[in-house]
Amino acid sequence: FVCKNPMEVNADDFFKAAALDKPRVTNKVGSNVTLINVMQIPGLNTLGISIARIDYAPLGQNPAHTHPRATEILTVLEGTLYVGFVTSNQPAPNRNKFISKVLNKGDVFVFPVGLIHFQFNPNPHKPAVAIAALSSQNPGAITIANAVFGSDPQISDDVLAKAFQVEKNTIDWLQAQFWENNHN
Amino acid sequence: FVCKNPMEVNADDFFKAAALDKPRVTNKVGSNVTLINVMQIPGLNTLGISIARIDYAPLGQNPAHTHPRATEILTVLEGTLYVGFVTSNQPAPNRNKFISKVLNKGDVFVFPVGLIHFQFNPNPHKPAVAIAALSSQNPGAITIANAVFGSDPQISDDVLAKAFQVEKNTIDWLQAQFWENNHN
Amino acid sequence: FVCKNPMEVNADDFFKAAALDKPRVTNKVGSNVTLINVMQIPGLNTLGISIARIDYAPLGQNPAHTHPRATEILTVLEGTLYVGFVTSNQPAPNRNKFISKVLNKGDVFVFPVGLIHFQFNPNPHKPAVAIAALSSQNPGAITIANAVFGSDPQISDDVLAKAFQVEKNTIDWLQAQFWENNHN
Amino acid sequence: FVCKNPMEVNADDFFKAAALDKPRVTNKVGSNVTLINVMQIPGLNTLGISIARIDYAPLGQNPAHTHPRATEILTVLEGTLYVGFVTSNQPAPNRNKFISKVLNKGDVFVFPVGLIHFQFNPNPHKPAVAIAALSSQNPGAITIANAVFGSDPQISDDVLAKAFQVEKNTIDWLQAQFWENNHN
Amino acid sequence: FVCKNPMEVNADDFFKAAALDKPRVTNKVGSNVTLINVMQIPGLNTLGISIARIDYAPLGQNPAHTHPRATEILTVLEGTLYVGFVTSNQPAPNRNKFISKVLNKGDVFVFPVGLIHFQFNPNPHKPAVAIAALSSQNPGAITIANAVFGSDPQISDDVLAKAFQVEKNTIDWLQAQFWENNHN
Amino acid sequence: FVCKNPMEVNADDFFKAAALDKPRVTNKVGSNVTLINVMQIPGLNTLGISIARIDYAPLGQNPAHTHPRATEILTVLEGTLYVGFVTSNQPAPNRNKFISKVLNKGDVFVFPVGLIHFQFNPNPHKPAVAIAALSSQNPGAITIANAVFGSDPQISDDVLAKAFQVEKNTIDWLQAQFWENNHN
Repeated sequence: FVCKNPMEVNADDFFKAAALDKPRVTNKVGSNVTLINVMQIPGLNTLGISIARIDYAPLGQNPAHTHPRATEILTVLEGTLYVGFVTSNQPAPNRNKFISKVLNKGDVFVFPVGLIHFQFNPNPHKPAVAIAALSSQNPGAITIANAVFGSDPQISDDVLAKAFQVEKNTIDWLQAQFWENNHN
Repeated sequence: FVCKNPMEVNADDFFKAAALDKPRVTNKVGSNVTLINVMQIPGLNTLGISIARIDYAPLGQNPAHTHPRATEILTVLEGTLYVGFVTSNQPAPNRNKFISKVLNKGDVFVFPVGLIHFQFNPNPHKPAVAIAALSSQNPGAITIANAVFGSDPQISDDVLAKAFQVEKNTIDWLQAQFWENNHN
Repeated sequence: FVCKNPMEVNADDFFKAAALDKPRVTNKVGSNVTLINVMQIPGLNTLGISIARIDYAPLGQNPAHTHPRATEILTVLEGTLYVGFVTSNQPAPNRNKFISKVLNKGDVFVFPVGLIHFQFNPNPHKPAVAIAALSSQNPGAITIANAVFGSDPQISDDVLAKAFQVEKNTIDWLQAQFWENNHN
Repeated sequence: FVCKNPMEVNADDFFKAAALDKPRVTNKVGSNVTLINVMQIPGLNTLGISIARIDYAPLGQNPAHTHPRATEILTVLEGTLYVGFVTSNQPAPNRNKFISKVLNKGDVFVFPVGLIHFQFNPNPHKPAVAIAALSSQNPGAITIANAVFGSDPQISDDVLAKAFQVEKNTIDWLQAQFWENNHN
Repeated sequence: FVCKNPMEVNADDFFKAAALDKPRVTNKVGSNVTLINVMQIPGLNTLGISIARIDYAPLGQNPAHTHPRATEILTVLEGTLYVGFVTSNQPAPNRNKFISKVLNKGDVFVFPVGLIHFQFNPNPHKPAVAIAALSSQNPGAITIANAVFGSDPQISDDVLAKAFQVEKNTIDWLQAQFWENNHN
Repeated sequence: FVCKNPMEVNADDFFKAAALDKPRVTNKVGSNVTLINVMQIPGLNTLGISIARIDYAPLGQNPAHTHPRATEILTVLEGTLYVGFVTSNQPAPNRNKFISKVLNKGDVFVFPVGLIHFQFNPNPHKPAVAIAALSSQNPGAITIANAVFGSDPQISDDVLAKAFQVEKNTIDWLQAQFWENNHN
């Protein structure tokens, strides 16, 4: 991205209309992430922040994912969310600590940069809504299941079978699923 | 702030309950900023982000201010906001360009780091609510009127009279007002 | 800015002649800032520093302003300066602390990034001169009075009247002044 | 970490003996990562780099993992490696692109910060050895399978079953495995 | 350095009296650098800038040196300076380009981070004075001749003789000189 | 460098074949540095790391040099190396501390950013090999002797004679040598 001459910028360089105004249709895992980053608002270039609305269907989740270039801070607008992240590998006895919390309306939670995290709406009847902010104008998102089992081309099933301690045909079955992305 | 041993952190280091759940009482200028930064959530240390809920009374405003260490991205949750910022000084014919927009529910707007900006609720009957995220765990806020006319001790009225092109007694009158802070 | 091939650079990419050699004519508030930044010396690109000479007429001032992207360090070359900055908003009892000092020749003072600051020459007979360095190749400057009351277009007088606790016609009078910029 | 007085540092603050000198015993998935970071060499504090030796058994792999705070550059010292990473989620038709290469002795490959990557020794008879450098003094490592299925405590199998499109008892079976860490 | 509570800071945390007010006695090579960095002004911590006054005797020089953590921008206050820096190694035909300029009062010149540079006063009768600013609160300085030939303990003369293409006894003679530092 | 569209990148953007596979011919001082940086692997752009293989002839050295934009971490693959760096100037009694170590196979050593350092193979019969990683995609290298005595054009011998406390004809003799670069 090239920076504009400061006398030529106008309000539309810093604005996105109706970006986060109402629920979006959720996907197969029951969520939808609407991210406003530098692709939508060019004035964000170099400024190190973006914002998203996340809608969760009843029992929906924003499945395990990471942001390779951003920390996330989230607040619940409606409903309840069970959220968590896993720490990076720690010395023996080796363990990845799982840190979780049930969030109600107005609660705030932080997912540190690069760690695997998820949000889940435990309510079988009501949707949930959250606003999340990210510490990059282009944070990126990597949905773990999609990246591991739904990449194009696929990762060798030999490699994955050993990494996940399952039979190759389990990997093949996983790779044959339709991996739908709820955000990019 | 000192970083904790990663095996000793727990969910409360990344969590703040009921932080942004409901309207706060607004101040004299008709707003209230509830900021969740590293002072409330120690796990934000070094991570470069914070989040705030802003409540606006009818005709209330979050008056002209800057964040010395952060860009702000804001989305409207309820009501309508007239928002704007002023660019830094530009070459002759010298001007500080004022960039503004009326925002409705779900609209997103960006206030670049260090620039003077405000939000105003133009509706005389209904409150407004916004969520704002800031690109620092400790963004700081400087309310212009308070910092200029309400500092402790006061800035010399000689200096301010010349800077603002008014009589000294106008400055004295301004300095005698009660300058209430709506956020820190 | 695009980086040049390192074998094609020459001394003129790192040089500006007679940039800070003698007093400049001061403006209406009695000062002149001559800033040498990346626009004057392209070799400063990405290097995070710039330098300025500031001339002060007797009783002249460099009025309250901020640099949105830089800390400033200043030393007095001639005369005396009364200088100060105001901290960002602090918790209740809420106050913006004013930190000031009288500087004589050779004294050094620091204005942290983004904070409102000024310099004033208290001597009614003699000019003053300072050298200031800034921690960005493009620090920016926002003269508070100009940005608030002299923007183009003007900020609504309704909004400013409430923010500054004055009558709308006081704001209108302020907005009708000629706001001259002493630096950009 | 607190910085030492520069006159009190000595060579041992910048040195680690025999750190990367010979093959280590590889783990269940057939690899061993010996990382020299700021915990081993305190003089690395703030300097943004670390180095590792990786040993691969025949058919061994360094399974899918990410470094939340570092890019990795790797060169092969002995043997052959099949390596790859998956890009972050991209716009529809949504896909995570898999980028891979077979590396021989002396080849160099880059794994960008935060992306899921692996190395696999395709040779059934010979081990392989690589040196990898990381752009942080404390890069962190998250082994995907361990963090998702082997965390402490475990992530709810309801949540994981939906995310990975498998039955809950498949998740339970995965969580019952012994997840051995080859690096931290 | 630990950051102070913002309500406890005072003007003396941002101030150094008479730091750069008058000529200092110059050393054997004919210069004196008076640097005001975070050791003198604790309020500079994390702010990325420092300032220095440099005095040059007639025919004096600030000999070839580098700043490992800062770019320098310099302006001449009095007299004339012949200044220059050498670029880093460039591809064949391998050469280190020498970029130089004669500076008069008010001229500005930039020495990019880490490059070897010097200033020389070519006037046999008059001193010269400059102000230099550096893009770090702790820039460091490495006087090349002192670091190479005057270190404690000494570098092996075998190593230096080959590097500098001279006899070992020339190195020994150099190492026997008194290497006086004009700044630290 | 301009960033590529992430969907258009391929493995060759992150790969360099046979870059570090075997010994290179060493130069006059007995070493050869083969650096793989962003010029060889465009995918390194913005990622802050590079890697090099260094070959040392018996009694060869990688002579005193600095990297203006990177810290270096080195491990020995074959042979023995005597390595060291010199700290920046320290307060009186002014000294540049020389920190050194003899490294054997697998030992790791760190050279902090911008400091003068060297490696020397003390074995008169066997070559040595090391891998070094640098904390920049474009670290730069400045061979001290070449930059000081072999620049193009030459630095004035008046200036250098005083800086190095030798006769001008010694400087002239040094400048007349052929200064061969072992890396760039």
